[in-house]
Amino acid sequence: MRTVAVKASSEYDVFIDAGLLERVGSYVSGIAEGEIAAVVTDDVVSELYLEKLLKSLHKKGFETPVFKVKSGEASKNAYTYVSLVEFLAESKLSHSDIVLAFGGGVVGDLAGFASATYLRGIPYIQIPTTLLAAVDSSIGGKTGVDIESGKNLVGTFYQPSAVICDLDLLEGLPPSIFTDGCAEVIKYGVIADSELFYSLKERPQFNLEEIVVKCATIKAEVVCEDEFETGRRKILNFGHTVGHAIEYLSNYNISHGRAVAIGMAIEARAAMKMGVCSDECYNELIDLLHRYGLPYTTRFSAQELSEAALSDKKRRGDKITLVFPEAIGCSVLRKADVVDLEEIIDLGIVKSGENA
Amino acid sequence: MRTVAVKASSEYDVFIDAGLLERVGSYVSGIAEGEIAAVVTDDVVSELYLEKLLKSLHKKGFETPVFKVKSGEASKNAYTYVSLVEFLAESKLSHSDIVLAFGGGVVGDLAGFASATYLRGIPYIQIPTTLLAAVDSSIGGKTGVDIESGKNLVGTFYQPSAVICDLDLLEGLPPSIFTDGCAEVIKYGVIADSELFYSLKERPQFNLEEIVVKCATIKAEVVCEDEFETGRRKILNFGHTVGHAIEYLSNYNISHGRAVAIGMAIEARAAMKMGVCSDECYNELIDLLHRYGLPYTTRFSAQELSEAALSDKKRRGDKITLVFPEAIGCSVLRKADVVDLEEIIDLGIVKSGENA
Repeated sequence: MRTVAVKASSEYDVFIDAGLLERVGSYVSGIAEGEIAAVVTDDVVSELYLEKLLKSLHKKGFETPVFKVKSGEASKNAYTYVSLVEFLAESKLSHSDIVLAFGGGVVGDLAGFASATYLRGIPYIQIPTTLLAAVDSSIGGKTGVDIESGKNLVGTFYQPSAVICDLDLLEGLPPSIFTDGCAEVIKYGVIADSELFYSLKERPQFNLEEIVVKCATIKAEVVCEDEFETGRRKILNFGHTVGHAIEYLSNYNISHGRAVAIGMAIEARAAMKMGVCSDECYNELIDLLHRYGLPYTTRFSAQELSEAALSDKKRRGDKITLVFPEAIGCSVLRKADVVDLEEIIDLGIVKSGENA
Repeated sequence: MRTVAVKASSEYDVFIDAGLLERVGSYVSGIAEGEIAAVVTDDVVSELYLEKLLKSLHKKGFETPVFKVKSGEASKNAYTYVSLVEFLAESKLSHSDIVLAFGGGVVGDLAGFASATYLRGIPYIQIPTTLLAAVDSSIGGKTGVDIESGKNLVGTFYQPSAVICDLDLLEGLPPSIFTDGCAEVIKYGVIADSELFYSLKERPQFNLEEIVVKCATIKAEVVCEDEFETGRRKILNFGHTVGHAIEYLSNYNISHGRAVAIGMAIEARAAMKMGVCSDECYNELIDLLHRYGLPYTTRFSAQELSEAALSDKKRRGDKITLVFPEAIGCSVLRKADVVDLEEIIDLGIVKSGENA
């Protein structure tokens, strides 16, 4: 088993291995003092893996109330959040009990936010079932839900007590979900690790354990340095300013990973046109997105994207922070006036007659 | 002006003086970098004071979107919270803008929770308009709302950027609201300050400024020592275990201050019967509650109270922490098995034929 330590305001481990699901009960009993382990999951994950998880928890004597949402971003909303905290109260969870977020990013963010606020905070453990959650959203304590006005507009920073990443789960879901996670893996390569980036070109040698460990290590390192995203942690938002706008405008029909892929392409192209990103870096990015079957163009206009992005949380006063790659493995933060955002995004959009 | 410093995970001041409302604009412009100061208030407070507040803010150039709730505990619920965060998003608040909680405990807890979670936290200032909020709920960063299952079951610890306490406002509301605050003042006397307690006996000499400063100082000191209520801060819950149960069982028709008054009487009487609290201390407490027109008996049974209390957040596993006064100005924390709570409450209830 590989272990990545996260040293944030509270410290915890990311456990990465095949076959961990059967041992979840042992991990949880080492962390929770109480008798209740409430499981938050979705209908797709529960169909595949819930029985095995519950068996492991029952073996250690836990009561296991289960809160199940419909798979998909639409479940990550404020009303589901209210239902979930009511459920935790009805299930009589106390500070010594624990919540298990058993699913992808939607379940992790929702369950994390409920855990952060129910009784002003009770412990929770992330058990990611998607590649995207394993390499990104399950680590670092960002929790939250979407509201009518936009994605992730309410939430907290609240660290889990552990992340238990069973590699066997990540490839068991539909391939399109795995591909979604590849977008975040590519992101880590672009912003911080050229070796990772180039290793992704050789898909036949895709070493899942190695990749999850590398991404988790980068994430842990960035979170340790800037837990509350006042500076360097923003680097992880590469592709996300435009990406969130695309998710929002598509009414979440375009998935997070695909939206981030398009966002990275647009943000990198804008950086290239502004002379920040090398042509080679941009071309390598597009090539890799293409190889992984990820999209890199959009039908939304620069005006639509800019308006949607500016209701997003990354606006700080009249400036917005953008992440621009300079070369593969190296990126910088650039502040831009919000009034210039539309123009910047427009630079990044492939015009008819142009090649990506 | 008197100033009480709160040194919690973030540091801020409680400003206490008459006539502060007109100067709020200056304080806010010294704290917020942005241009928007969103005001959260209730219908009763806004009728009396909103115009003056807005005038002061406009003088400093702030935009002032106003979110108004109906006065009363029923507004402090999860659905109002969702409406409020939507309102903040629609009003385009960013991290550099600020929320002003302009009202009593309901408004303060609700606005604080929205501020803690909107964009994962933006600054807010407490401007208490009731004695209860001035001496207690506006200080120390406990935020939250009620859900169907009970009071304050979701929330956060999230400190304000300042507390601006205009003494002129506290006596402008109906006398019953002022009396409610007196219950919390009496609480501080019992748990921590015998001089304060005995000074309250001489109502004609009730020095509002002195009392607010004393209570704020005690609260600040306790919060500095134990911000996240893992130990000593629980002392502030004297009367609240039973008090919250009474509020809940009465469907919030019994106000917080009155419920806490009854809660203190029951918890102190139980402590007396258990040999922890002196007879004199209990009798002094009942005498003072009586002088302030506060209730000290209830029609709810020990069984009802115990059941309602155990869905409350103060349960930690199978133990509950109770606050028992030993003498006026001196109290202790006692852990009890939850199975014994009904019996303990029953000791505290005045039986027919007995005197309080």
